[in-house]
Amino acid sequence: MTLHVFDQAIALQPLGEDRFAGKTSPAYANMVGPFGGVTAATALNAVLQHPALLGEPVALTVNYAAALADAPFEVVARAARTNRSTQHWVVEIVQSGETVLTATAVTAARRGTWGVDELAAPDMPTADALGQPNMAAQVEWVRRYDIRITEGAIPTAWDGSGDASRTTLWMRDEPARPLDFCSLAAMADVFYPRVWLRRATRVPAGTVSMTVYFHAGGAELAAVGAGWIKGQASAQAFRNGFFDQTAQVWSEAGRMLATSHQVVYFKE
Amino acid sequence: MTLHVFDQAIALQPLGEDRFAGKTSPAYANMVGPFGGVTAATALNAVLQHPALLGEPVALTVNYAAALADAPFEVVARAARTNRSTQHWVVEIVQSGETVLTATAVTAARRGTWGVDELAAPDMPTADALGQPNMAAQVEWVRRYDIRITEGAIPTAWDGSGDASRTTLWMRDEPARPLDFCSLAAMADVFYPRVWLRRATRVPAGTVSMTVYFHAGGAELAAVGAGWIKGQASAQAFRNGFFDQTAQVWSEAGRMLATSHQVVYFKE
Repeated sequence: MTLHVFDQAIALQPLGEDRFAGKTSPAYANMVGPFGGVTAATALNAVLQHPALLGEPVALTVNYAAALADAPFEVVARAARTNRSTQHWVVEIVQSGETVLTATAVTAARRGTWGVDELAAPDMPTADALGQPNMAAQVEWVRRYDIRITEGAIPTAWDGSGDASRTTLWMRDEPARPLDFCSLAAMADVFYPRVWLRRATRVPAGTVSMTVYFHAGGAELAAVGAGWIKGQASAQAFRNGFFDQTAQVWSEAGRMLATSHQVVYFKE
Repeated sequence: MTLHVFDQAIALQPLGEDRFAGKTSPAYANMVGPFGGVTAATALNAVLQHPALLGEPVALTVNYAAALADAPFEVVARAARTNRSTQHWVVEIVQSGETVLTATAVTAARRGTWGVDELAAPDMPTADALGQPNMAAQVEWVRRYDIRITEGAIPTAWDGSGDASRTTLWMRDEPARPLDFCSLAAMADVFYPRVWLRRATRVPAGTVSMTVYFHAGGAELAAVGAGWIKGQASAQAFRNGFFDQTAQVWSEAGRMLATSHQVVYFKE
């Protein structure tokens, strides 16, 4: 059986004592280095593969210190603290002796409690109604998803006319793949830079730090399977070379799966 | 001259080679251990005091691994990567040989660029119109702030009647203190647990991880001085023992200063 291209991209070989070996995948190439979502998923995968793992992911923060070279790398994942039902992880990705990513994660054994989704998923036309992927594939990784934007597409005229930064979309892996924590972490990062939309101006931009909170457990993600995922992202402020982005990801049935926040560098 | 009580609480003594000594302050005591906002500010302070610091804070993530004991602690802050204009920090707070907090931070030398605040500050009555602090001081740290809630107060009847989780408020240090990165990081955490408001039910709750993005530079924070700060927080989803909270902090003039996101443990 051949592994799904996403599983190939995030695959790690244990090197013992908190260390794992990986390598970048050309299938998820971005403008420079790999798609940040796949790098985030790889950092999380080291935690999930770790023999000392307790529970399932609740929070993941990744900080992109440098673009990864298209080459092997090493992931170091250390359980800094293990409590009765929560565990705190410190992760670094190192390439040629230099840190290219720092990360932290919190995992926990979840228990059933009262709950409610406060933020409802946006109303939007069905993915089928849109008919086909419509996010311009200017870089390779975009072809690894079927993304159907329902609001806030990449501008086609770069005329400075933008006035809002919200994008809503449908997405799923291409080819289809059952949802899990790693693919969900990657999907939190599929939204192209908000500054392009808000300004209708294409400027260099790259994520500096991203945090993902997982609201669903593994069983719930498995139940979503390879179904459509609904996503929404918008910025709150742009200033002096950085902007932020809040994002939410729901199942097709409207169940909140993850919320995310990132800060992005931009030029000019 | 006596240091402001906040500066006393976050004070660190350099121990050389990435290490700093601090101790908890009874003035900021929470239910168990110190107010998480002050612990976040202390982690950030280690980065700001570090002799290798480049630039100013852009992003801070703190993960609360255990309640701090009311005792001395050590902060380890390491520059994992220094680029031309950004720097990546890995921080841990250790007490009695155990990790009680993990953190990462990104600092950067900011340059002037195009900018806009996309999310406008909520309209609300002035702090003066409210007349006095109105957030019930059930724990000591609340007395270190003048907090005037304009919407979404702590319920007075715990009758399960809640239906929304948004709180808007005015805040400033008490006594007054000019705003800086550390006090802004702490202010991102003043919002009491959203689960109390949403359910009108008081359950045990504690922040697990918090991220703060700084949209203003040091000069801009200095210009805000000891003025009123406007804050807003709401949850997006509650499920299986955890909920998230997004928060925004503006100057009185309505300028976005910071955006924040946290995930909080709750019981039942």
